[in-house]
Amino acid sequence: MTGTRRGAPTARQIRAGDRRALARAISAVENGAPEADALLKELYPTTGRVRVVGFTGPLGVGKSSLINALVAHLRGRDRRVAVVAVDPSSPFSGGSVLGDRIRFDRPASDEGVFFRSMASRGAAGGVAAATRDAARLLDAAGFEEILVETVGSGQVDIAIRDIASTSVVVLVPHLGDEVQTLKAGLFEIADVFAVNKSDLPGADSARRDLVELAALGGGRDGWRTPVVLTSTLGPTGIPELWDAIVAHEAFLDRSGGRPAAERRRLAKEIVGRVRDRVDAELTDGLESDPALRRLLDRVASRDVDPRTAAEQLLRARRRSR
Amino acid sequence: MTGTRRGAPTARQIRAGDRRALARAISAVENGAPEADALLKELYPTTGRVRVVGFTGPLGVGKSSLINALVAHLRGRDRRVAVVAVDPSSPFSGGSVLGDRIRFDRPASDEGVFFRSMASRGAAGGVAAATRDAARLLDAAGFEEILVETVGSGQVDIAIRDIASTSVVVLVPHLGDEVQTLKAGLFEIADVFAVNKSDLPGADSARRDLVELAALGGGRDGWRTPVVLTSTLGPTGIPELWDAIVAHEAFLDRSGGRPAAERRRLAKEIVGRVRDRVDAELTDGLESDPALRRLLDRVASRDVDPRTAAEQLLRARRRSR
Repeated sequence: MTGTRRGAPTARQIRAGDRRALARAISAVENGAPEADALLKELYPTTGRVRVVGFTGPLGVGKSSLINALVAHLRGRDRRVAVVAVDPSSPFSGGSVLGDRIRFDRPASDEGVFFRSMASRGAAGGVAAATRDAARLLDAAGFEEILVETVGSGQVDIAIRDIASTSVVVLVPHLGDEVQTLKAGLFEIADVFAVNKSDLPGADSARRDLVELAALGGGRDGWRTPVVLTSTLGPTGIPELWDAIVAHEAFLDRSGGRPAAERRRLAKEIVGRVRDRVDAELTDGLESDPALRRLLDRVASRDVDPRTAAEQLLRARRRSR
Repeated sequence: MTGTRRGAPTARQIRAGDRRALARAISAVENGAPEADALLKELYPTTGRVRVVGFTGPLGVGKSSLINALVAHLRGRDRRVAVVAVDPSSPFSGGSVLGDRIRFDRPASDEGVFFRSMASRGAAGGVAAATRDAARLLDAAGFEEILVETVGSGQVDIAIRDIASTSVVVLVPHLGDEVQTLKAGLFEIADVFAVNKSDLPGADSARRDLVELAALGGGRDGWRTPVVLTSTLGPTGIPELWDAIVAHEAFLDRSGGRPAAERRRLAKEIVGRVRDRVDAELTDGLESDPALRRLLDRVASRDVDPRTAAEQLLRARRRSR
């Protein structure tokens, strides 16, 4: 709690853990507001030490309940936990469409928990970059564990790998035909599998299937994806799930894989920021720059094809600046 | 049927309606293969006259069956029809994950129908651009109606508007809480609503709700989105649905909205192609260019923040070329 509530949130407020300043700062990130740029630049040097754990999976597997159970587990160990719910693949300009339906059942008085659903709106670099910025703010504000949940897309979202150092794919015992076809994709994503609703029949055979697939896949850089049975009735398997996450984080440190993965994420974030700027400049230019308007006219009249137009634009950008 | 089966498909083969050449050409588009560029450049001047109708909606609303029924309707009127199933929002590098489960129940001997599911893979400009290219190939090959179905994402996909001149949003009578929250988004997308499975209870009240919402929205540029009840048992409502689509196409011509909408789609396609190229060059550069590698090192060591790095890259691109 520092200073005035008005004006742009300051780095000092964020570092002091001011929850309102934090909420405003995350909104600024979502909206691509300029005050977010200055703030994130200032905070960047002292962030990046908190692990970010991502959760993805089809609709209806109980991700939110599972995360609630993990938060209770972590609060029982006195860890300060933040949860960010995002829709990485949402193409809506209005941002995350289903984010608002996510509920969270900690007492409002618990200052050791922070929950936020994120939309993409004008965020530069896409929603993955915005989520990483939110994680930096939460890191700077002193949260010790950051859990990111993908919502809304109803599919397993590979974008989670651009956000999290450990990605948990949540499934249920009877996956159904749709999810069966995802299997190859699942191993691109999962560092840990949770078979949730494991009180339902078929949980053991689902685990066996996934363990077998993981063995066939041979693991990523020597990591064999563990499969944990969980249920939020009880609950059961929650400490085991957290231990599997911690084991993957330890593996990243032991194997030396962490810096390479973080470099890859940072490269993607930087490229995303440049790309979004180029996109905005060109989109604007095709409306407002007379030469570009004429080029678009010629494409619309079928005198120039879109590929040739794109090549001309690339050459023009290289020459003129 | 012209010439050899080997080598790159030619414009002549496509114009002659050679189905194998067409299939190979669409694969080339999907994979971003260079032969696609030459072919699409050559065909572009004589394409763009066939309407492209898009269908989107949540999983389980029966889009595929509805499209099958529309195809039967159009074949009954002797129209040559092509169907392209795409997953516009799939973030998987391997492309459309659920596309393969789509079935299509026309006799294989019917040369008046072409079905294809599309993945994104290396397609330049994204999957929307690839789908537009596929539509151009189908147009050049003499198909008179092109139907595009979004699959896989399990949500209503706004990217359909970058592909189709008329977008049909398919829903079912009991939308459920999840889809209720989509409502605002739906009107960003829908030129026509189909309430499918209208044999189920609640169809009339769903129609009333949507008609009311459409009236509140006031329509887009004077178009009031019609709501058509359909069912593939029977089937019922299929001619009415097609008539609503044709009415929207006529509205685009009458109102003068068509050229503006097509310009917007072309601008987006061109920008997408430039953006993808910039993305590829930068991603490659951050690996291979010593100066860019050093910049990424400094971001990884927290000496430079990602925003500042992106700004430096943009300035460097402008100076050096």
